[in-house]
Amino acid sequence: MQGFDYQTPTRLIFGEGVIQKLPEVLGAIGRKVLLAYGGGSIRKMGLYDKVMELLKDFEIVELPGIQPNPKYDPSVLDGVRLCKEHGIEVILAVGGGSVLDCSKAIAAGAKYDGDPWDLISYQVKAKAALPVVDILTLAATGSEYDFYGVISRTETNDKIGYGDPLVYPVCSFLDPTYTFTVSKKQTAAGCADAMNHIMEQYFCEDHTLLNDGFCEAGLKSLMINTKACLENPEDFRARAEMMFACTLGCNGIYSLGNSPSGWPLHGIEHALSAYYDITHGEGLAIITPRWMRYVLSERTVDRFVKYGVNVFGIDPTLDSFEIAEQAIDRTFIFFEEIGIPMRLRDLGIGEERIDEMAHHVAVNEGLENAWVPLSESDIAAILRESL
Amino acid sequence: MQGFDYQTPTRLIFGEGVIQKLPEVLGAIGRKVLLAYGGGSIRKMGLYDKVMELLKDFEIVELPGIQPNPKYDPSVLDGVRLCKEHGIEVILAVGGGSVLDCSKAIAAGAKYDGDPWDLISYQVKAKAALPVVDILTLAATGSEYDFYGVISRTETNDKIGYGDPLVYPVCSFLDPTYTFTVSKKQTAAGCADAMNHIMEQYFCEDHTLLNDGFCEAGLKSLMINTKACLENPEDFRARAEMMFACTLGCNGIYSLGNSPSGWPLHGIEHALSAYYDITHGEGLAIITPRWMRYVLSERTVDRFVKYGVNVFGIDPTLDSFEIAEQAIDRTFIFFEEIGIPMRLRDLGIGEERIDEMAHHVAVNEGLENAWVPLSESDIAAILRESL
Repeated sequence: MQGFDYQTPTRLIFGEGVIQKLPEVLGAIGRKVLLAYGGGSIRKMGLYDKVMELLKDFEIVELPGIQPNPKYDPSVLDGVRLCKEHGIEVILAVGGGSVLDCSKAIAAGAKYDGDPWDLISYQVKAKAALPVVDILTLAATGSEYDFYGVISRTETNDKIGYGDPLVYPVCSFLDPTYTFTVSKKQTAAGCADAMNHIMEQYFCEDHTLLNDGFCEAGLKSLMINTKACLENPEDFRARAEMMFACTLGCNGIYSLGNSPSGWPLHGIEHALSAYYDITHGEGLAIITPRWMRYVLSERTVDRFVKYGVNVFGIDPTLDSFEIAEQAIDRTFIFFEEIGIPMRLRDLGIGEERIDEMAHHVAVNEGLENAWVPLSESDIAAILRESL
Repeated sequence: MQGFDYQTPTRLIFGEGVIQKLPEVLGAIGRKVLLAYGGGSIRKMGLYDKVMELLKDFEIVELPGIQPNPKYDPSVLDGVRLCKEHGIEVILAVGGGSVLDCSKAIAAGAKYDGDPWDLISYQVKAKAALPVVDILTLAATGSEYDFYGVISRTETNDKIGYGDPLVYPVCSFLDPTYTFTVSKKQTAAGCADAMNHIMEQYFCEDHTLLNDGFCEAGLKSLMINTKACLENPEDFRARAEMMFACTLGCNGIYSLGNSPSGWPLHGIEHALSAYYDITHGEGLAIITPRWMRYVLSERTVDRFVKYGVNVFGIDPTLDSFEIAEQAIDRTFIFFEEIGIPMRLRDLGIGEERIDEMAHHVAVNEGLENAWVPLSESDIAAILRESL
């Protein structure tokens, strides 16, 4: 068991109707609010109007139009500018992981005099950040309970995961009913994203009984509840269980005491969605079984056996490699069953830029230190298997 | 799935040698320190000297002699007086749950002008509390990661669990090597205490797949690792895994979204250890299988089936009541195997005060609202079964 230094100060307010507490929570922080959101979905579901009504005594500046795979230019830059111009005291992110990730970058950038990219690219350590509060509308990334964000810079094909405890959300409002209108495609992609967060922590060298149980419970809960959400999008219990399993995804609680894995699936996928702007969760789902098969070996097989037996209930008396192969097949089949296109070609990605992406990942993601070290040619091979 | 409002701000620093960070952590808070501890064990293991050496630039006031089932008089009262007299800025609790619980009560009392019992008995809500930092030497109560404490008042046989988010520890130092010298008796009692914390959250009406998996993982980890600790008290991994499973015990993470159970085992046991000053974990272990059998019914059997199948691996194809009975037997046998005396008579408790204790519990613990409601006669029956 490894040592750790852990703290998650974020307050989680979970349940139907919790948004009523928004004025009280925001009011304790400040009255000048940057309202950050994405496309029209929060208007369609009535959440925009609800927030405006609750915050009628606050001064609101809006930053709409934050895209999936949120962009440094214009979203982060616009947000930072608005915060500085209007003396914003708190950022209210209403949306999914992209809106939240973008808001975190804005929060740090707003308290920094230079180019915010200095912070995102770790050239400069932030000294302060605006407080961020969020209302979650998509169960997926766990950004609502961690201090990470992923920002894309189109002109350089960079998609950078940055992190700073300063940008932990102060408070996350988690109302499962706000995810009732999430499309089947995004529900499935959110599940795949959250499952991958857990897998990135589970597949490692040093792990504990407790963490293995936590991870296996998270994976099973996500698989069962996602299918229930797809069958009945307004199944409160399923949406609630799915949301909470996602929320715990990246704050460490699934793996405190585990050795680091290097997060190879995310490392590879970041190149895919940076080069092709695809849905992150779909990219992850496609790569996952190919990565699993690629790294399966005498050294790693026991890990896949535990995964297969405890997550999929595969017969533990079978041969180890047989269990592992079945577990990998079952992983593929599950993603297929929830409707994820399971080949890169299905997303319009071909052979053309495989080597370029593999090179980009090899240079930027440090996967030579992953649980199973991956070289540039390994990464290219996994990407080709995923075509 | 139930709503919740959750926040655990405590920083956990876990691993061998982490105490080196103590001056940095304390120094950021204050230099006038109340050093609270119990008997001689921290001296014997060299921890007292180590702390004094690390804090040579701090002003230390000592509060030694805090007893198990920590007493309002003298420990809490003495601590509050010392804090006020010396202008203490931070309390450093070095010990197990009793030292921590006592330190939390002192922390609140030190910032209150009246009788600290007003706060402990919830007659007055605390407005502030001194910060508490701790170095844990016993894996058991989870007090290092929650905002609860249990204080005993001898003259009235009161043993009150109080809680206030103000008394969350600021930082807990968790070094498993400090538990190497814990006796077999206390190791087993700590395991029983932590298992009961999990059971009090698991046995309830409304629960989720995720939480059930978390709880089952916690119970299995505790059972396996405690046996390993008893076999080899210096098994770092086992001590580490046991410590961390205990640490998560009462801060909610095992059961966010579950309906409340009413904590009947603790309700009943608090009377036992208040009237007889026994070891809390032993009292809990004795009551547990008797309570289980008493509340087993058509309504509750499915819960015991899940417990039996997932925690003990009992054959799921058996009859439900057969699985439940086996699970209860296995619970009893496990506690016996780790050396806990499993009858109240073994601890010198007879028939004499059963009715008095049952009355005390019925009046003070609200168990008529427990998962399975318990009346005074139910409580007396469970206590009699435990003799």
